[in-house]
Amino acid sequence: MWDSTQKLYDGVLKHDRTSLARAITLIESSREDHRRQAAILLDSLLQARAQREQGSGGVLGSRVPPTFRVGVAGPPGAGKSTLIEAVGMRLVQQGHRVAVVAIDPSSSRTGGSILGDKTRMTELSRHPHAFVRPSPTSGALGGVAQHTHDVILLCEGGGYDIVLVETVGLGQSEVTVDSCVDMLWLVVPPGGGDELQGVKKGIVEVADVILVNKADGHLATAARHAAAEYSRALQLVRWKHGSWQPVVHQVSAVSGLGLPEALATADAFRDTMGGQGHIAAKRQHQAGEWMWNDFEAALVARGKAAAGVKAAAARLQPALAAGFITPRRAAARLLDAFLPPKKTEDNKLA
Amino acid sequence: MWDSTQKLYDGVLKHDRTSLARAITLIESSREDHRRQAAILLDSLLQARAQREQGSGGVLGSRVPPTFRVGVAGPPGAGKSTLIEAVGMRLVQQGHRVAVVAIDPSSSRTGGSILGDKTRMTELSRHPHAFVRPSPTSGALGGVAQHTHDVILLCEGGGYDIVLVETVGLGQSEVTVDSCVDMLWLVVPPGGGDELQGVKKGIVEVADVILVNKADGHLATAARHAAAEYSRALQLVRWKHGSWQPVVHQVSAVSGLGLPEALATADAFRDTMGGQGHIAAKRQHQAGEWMWNDFEAALVARGKAAAGVKAAAARLQPALAAGFITPRRAAARLLDAFLPPKKTEDNKLA
Repeated sequence: MWDSTQKLYDGVLKHDRTSLARAITLIESSREDHRRQAAILLDSLLQARAQREQGSGGVLGSRVPPTFRVGVAGPPGAGKSTLIEAVGMRLVQQGHRVAVVAIDPSSSRTGGSILGDKTRMTELSRHPHAFVRPSPTSGALGGVAQHTHDVILLCEGGGYDIVLVETVGLGQSEVTVDSCVDMLWLVVPPGGGDELQGVKKGIVEVADVILVNKADGHLATAARHAAAEYSRALQLVRWKHGSWQPVVHQVSAVSGLGLPEALATADAFRDTMGGQGHIAAKRQHQAGEWMWNDFEAALVARGKAAAGVKAAAARLQPALAAGFITPRRAAARLLDAFLPPKKTEDNKLA
Repeated sequence: MWDSTQKLYDGVLKHDRTSLARAITLIESSREDHRRQAAILLDSLLQARAQREQGSGGVLGSRVPPTFRVGVAGPPGAGKSTLIEAVGMRLVQQGHRVAVVAIDPSSSRTGGSILGDKTRMTELSRHPHAFVRPSPTSGALGGVAQHTHDVILLCEGGGYDIVLVETVGLGQSEVTVDSCVDMLWLVVPPGGGDELQGVKKGIVEVADVILVNKADGHLATAARHAAAEYSRALQLVRWKHGSWQPVVHQVSAVSGLGLPEALATADAFRDTMGGQGHIAAKRQHQAGEWMWNDFEAALVARGKAAAGVKAAAARLQPALAAGFITPRRAAARLLDAFLPPKKTEDNKLA
């Protein structure tokens, strides 16, 4: 197995997109041995990067991290994919290497794909300095896959200095994706519509920039109105960061209108926030969050797989089905089966 | 403490709304002793109900459960609260006792409330046979509070035979609320709008009935078009249940249009699905889901509170912040601190 990990490692470092895609598949695998292999690979890539950066003075010489992670959120139909393709093409032309990780909050009933229905960024995916990867959520609520952070680290390990994380949804998924990125772009359609009014405040307050898309042709007027409305909404919310005032741009992925301004804003964010150490601090905070999330997921997996828990669940099943015991009581019995009550005292002593 | 539990128990059984409200507050409390008291109360109420139903032949004599739980989901601005108030008033006039549990997917950043901004069902809440209770989500994703199922059981223990569970949101929250109820109503505004296109399929496939609201005045035409569109969408999805064909109704909470038809559909659902044992079967399945959810939440709480885990997290913090160790690796160390590796072998032997 190490042989194969070594091959993947070499491939990812040599910017081989197939190797990177395979490594991501390993991370996302439900097989424990796959994930273990991916963890070894990821550790090696991180070490290699740490050495590289120490050699070049990257991490120590500057407070701005050498990579930049951008979340692109917004409701379905806002034109996120088209916008990401247009932005991504500009970034690779500027000399960046761009990875796109699409988080797909698939329907939990069908296991079907919302994002997968569309042809995905065909021009960008063909560019040699770009990597476009859809990522299934494996049923996670909130639209951010459990493995997104590892996928971002893998992309960076593979030499991509800009990672764009796309997610669909209204409400919670923006907050969740924000826990994986340095900067959050909110992409909105030109006509906000009544449906958006209720959640607008919640969405707006996590955005670092709001891009009113499709600001061309017959929607130009609607986009102007929407932009004014979002600007007003931004004035009503507390700034997410004390030192960054969220900005609204009207853009058109099709005509290219507003894209240079949007990219200049992203640069300004990176310079301002990064220079003041806020991006590095945010990443440290996120690493702590990811650690606890991974801990929770691993702990739950261990608990549900334990033979004693499975046996207790089987014993409780008839009483639970008949309504003689509440689910909460039954859960307490399962917990006792996994962590015998004396365990609590051990913990107190520790 | 038992004294107070006894008082609450008597109060809830005597249909005292203040006692019921207090009991729900106990369930939702973050204090362990409160939740323990609420669990005792809930168990006693369930036992009392089981005896009552056995006496009347309720549960054994009929396959249709004596209570009916309806989820009311839909995007913000669809008019769910107004519709629930109108429907609730009709139900109490028919002799039902109606409890409304509103699940509020509050903004995770501000802790603010979306539903709480509005005046909530003032007419219904004043009716002696109704109980209206907003329920905070305590930050849970998906819009269904961790305690919703216990709250439903408490309401039923308090003699409410119809429980309406309201939730806002597009996407996942409908699926989640569906795991707490017998039947899911999807309430949509008359103009679906482009934003809804992308998720329409996912929403539609969990709905047992779709109510196109505000089908009056100048929106009547739009509502007719939307209803036709949703009917077409329903033909494209697999039926959620083999024996129930989802229905679309145009309704107006304000004028009362379509409400008798919607309620007749709900009755038909309860008769058809209940009579065939599907509602009882769904509840048994849900009880299993709730048990596992509670187990996961309790296990995670125990793990995060363990002294050994906290100490390990503090030790790992510098390496994690510096990026020398991945969050995934750090999480594995935390897990080792909570469940020492030898533990795995114990589990294998068990």
